[in-house]
Amino acid sequence: MNQAPAKCNMVCQRTMILLRRGTVRNYTFYNYTSGYIHQCLVDGLEYDTKYYYKIDSGDSYREFWFQTPPKINPDIPYKFGIIGDLGQTYNSLSTLEHYMQSGAQAVLFVGDLAYADRYMYNDVGIRWDTWGRFVERSAAYQPWMWSAGNHEIEYMPDMGEVIPFKSYLNRYPTPHLASKSSSPLWYAIRRASAHIIVLSSYSPFVKYTPQWEWLRKELKRVDREKTPWLIVLMHVPIYNSNEAHFMEGESMRAVFEEWFVHYKVDVIFAGHVHAYERSYRISNIHYNVSGGDCYPVADKSAPVYITVGDGGNQEGLAERFRDPQPDYSAFREASYGHSTLEIKNKTHALYHWNRNDDGKKVSTDAFVLHNQHWLYLHRGSNLRRRKLKKHHLRRVVDWASSF
Amino acid sequence: MNQAPAKCNMVCQRTMILLRRGTVRNYTFYNYTSGYIHQCLVDGLEYDTKYYYKIDSGDSYREFWFQTPPKINPDIPYKFGIIGDLGQTYNSLSTLEHYMQSGAQAVLFVGDLAYADRYMYNDVGIRWDTWGRFVERSAAYQPWMWSAGNHEIEYMPDMGEVIPFKSYLNRYPTPHLASKSSSPLWYAIRRASAHIIVLSSYSPFVKYTPQWEWLRKELKRVDREKTPWLIVLMHVPIYNSNEAHFMEGESMRAVFEEWFVHYKVDVIFAGHVHAYERSYRISNIHYNVSGGDCYPVADKSAPVYITVGDGGNQEGLAERFRDPQPDYSAFREASYGHSTLEIKNKTHALYHWNRNDDGKKVSTDAFVLHNQHWLYLHRGSNLRRRKLKKHHLRRVVDWASSF
Repeated sequence: MNQAPAKCNMVCQRTMILLRRGTVRNYTFYNYTSGYIHQCLVDGLEYDTKYYYKIDSGDSYREFWFQTPPKINPDIPYKFGIIGDLGQTYNSLSTLEHYMQSGAQAVLFVGDLAYADRYMYNDVGIRWDTWGRFVERSAAYQPWMWSAGNHEIEYMPDMGEVIPFKSYLNRYPTPHLASKSSSPLWYAIRRASAHIIVLSSYSPFVKYTPQWEWLRKELKRVDREKTPWLIVLMHVPIYNSNEAHFMEGESMRAVFEEWFVHYKVDVIFAGHVHAYERSYRISNIHYNVSGGDCYPVADKSAPVYITVGDGGNQEGLAERFRDPQPDYSAFREASYGHSTLEIKNKTHALYHWNRNDDGKKVSTDAFVLHNQHWLYLHRGSNLRRRKLKKHHLRRVVDWASSF
Repeated sequence: MNQAPAKCNMVCQRTMILLRRGTVRNYTFYNYTSGYIHQCLVDGLEYDTKYYYKIDSGDSYREFWFQTPPKINPDIPYKFGIIGDLGQTYNSLSTLEHYMQSGAQAVLFVGDLAYADRYMYNDVGIRWDTWGRFVERSAAYQPWMWSAGNHEIEYMPDMGEVIPFKSYLNRYPTPHLASKSSSPLWYAIRRASAHIIVLSSYSPFVKYTPQWEWLRKELKRVDREKTPWLIVLMHVPIYNSNEAHFMEGESMRAVFEEWFVHYKVDVIFAGHVHAYERSYRISNIHYNVSGGDCYPVADKSAPVYITVGDGGNQEGLAERFRDPQPDYSAFREASYGHSTLEIKNKTHALYHWNRNDDGKKVSTDAFVLHNQHWLYLHRGSNLRRRKLKKHHLRRVVDWASSF
């Protein structure tokens, strides 16, 4: 394993060159040996600045660029994309191209990247390579915030590979140390006016585990005055009315739902189910085994739960929703697509779910998201408990068009 | 770290000497460096035979012995002890001494060993050493089946230690490879007429994780014709009506309860709550988010759930139970003690919870456990759904005395 350090050459606005020393690693998976994976942490950058970077390879090189985010500010606009369960099919390509047309500045990726584990032997490693090349057209130019899904676990004892997330951890580092996390699998970042928390559905998360301890502290560190938009990413949805993976989120819900409500998380994005679904603001935290009250109820403090696991992977769509549609479910459809969250300022964000349908970007579920922190501050005690209504979507579509 | 192999000298019935080569390791925790920890796998032993073994140390040695179990057989009697959350206080000593008077042949330990993590800095490592010496009076002579509890996690970022279970994994190996597990934290053993499955509450366990995949296969490997007694150990109780740790078991219940019922597990032992509690045979597997049915109901196929986290550790007893006592809870008391499960044959086992009370071994909760597999085979469809009754204990005590 070659541990020689690599150099990343940086050019800033073609006026200044920054040199940073990185690291290089490679790994094996079954009989596959990866190429050299270089990792370079570049600091001392300016906010809101375009940087070019070159990857040298002997006499040739490839040049890319990225734009650093604006300084942390509660009113700063910023546009996120949300993609999940992408894979590497023609549908995946359609999703990716539609996403790139959206003008969004960073991707919140909710897990299940390459689907390499659907292959065998050396093809597992090879399919990670092909996926890296596939998403490069976007991921080389803007950050993708990675979450690990079940397809990253790659627990394959018959092939002698039993360490979870081996390929993923070697290829897709995350800035976990900056948020005092002991694992790349759970971490937080702040970007523009958002505080984004990434959780790991397939790491231990019950009380007393490192992830639980970390989240408890991280939620206290959130400053809604600086970053009013509190967004959580996870792979397994907590609310899901599809037959696929039904109730798999109950384990995590039992542990964290109260915190999400208490801290008034704005929105939780998940993947895992290959369809789209959005919930109302609901919670189910009254259950105490001996009593009743085990049904989700409208809760203004609760997040909106959105499943965007419809990136396009080879497993296809999860077309069987449970009927009737539960009261807590606002919108659901089994179509490929991606979402965008366009933060306008500290109080409003425009949300769209964009279907790939017919080769054109079609906006299907769209509404204005009001910031939970500022909504409470400014509306005080006049908020009444909204009833869950079917066809609530009609109202929010009207609402969105009146914005 | 000294990796030199060590030798364990074995003497079998003073007529034959077996030599086996072991391994030695040590580890650090903060500024503490452990002594040399030797591990020796001895195979080729006879069933039901007493073996002596010596630990050499220069010119001196210490001699111990153990009895191998009888050959696997559905009707073979065997007596297990169940201890949890032991620690190293005077109450712990009382529990241990009472246990040793019981004549039980192996300990099912349900987690939380040394409570070393309640100390700081180098005392963490030192308290593991003292605990090892403390339990040696039993653990050197009979097997203790280890489960990991939250006090084994030792996630202590302020001390630079963030790898869960570091001390525990270095000191207390388990035979996980023999049951095709990829981790020492979950495994299974067969002993006499019992198949014992050990789960890890603080490792990932949701669908698609290695522990989940392993348990799914292991339950299929259980052969009730050979080992009719199916026992599961975990640290966090799935049913618990104490205020302490209330509903912490919900996450695992959501994942595994259906399997426990489907495979007709005989009994599940847990610790974590520093008190004693036994449930009726109940299940709560009907819940589907949108419907009702979220209350535990009597279920003949379900295990008995027993919490024995009352070994005596320094945190004291969990004295606040929730009132009123729920219907699913058959017996509960906040007293130090241990339990024994004395398997008589393939159909009956005598169960006792023994309180340390007043320095004498006092048997408080006791009943006959009927084997779930043979009960179904022999009673056929005449079984009626038993109602949950309070004071059910009186009936089982009468029942036990009529055995």
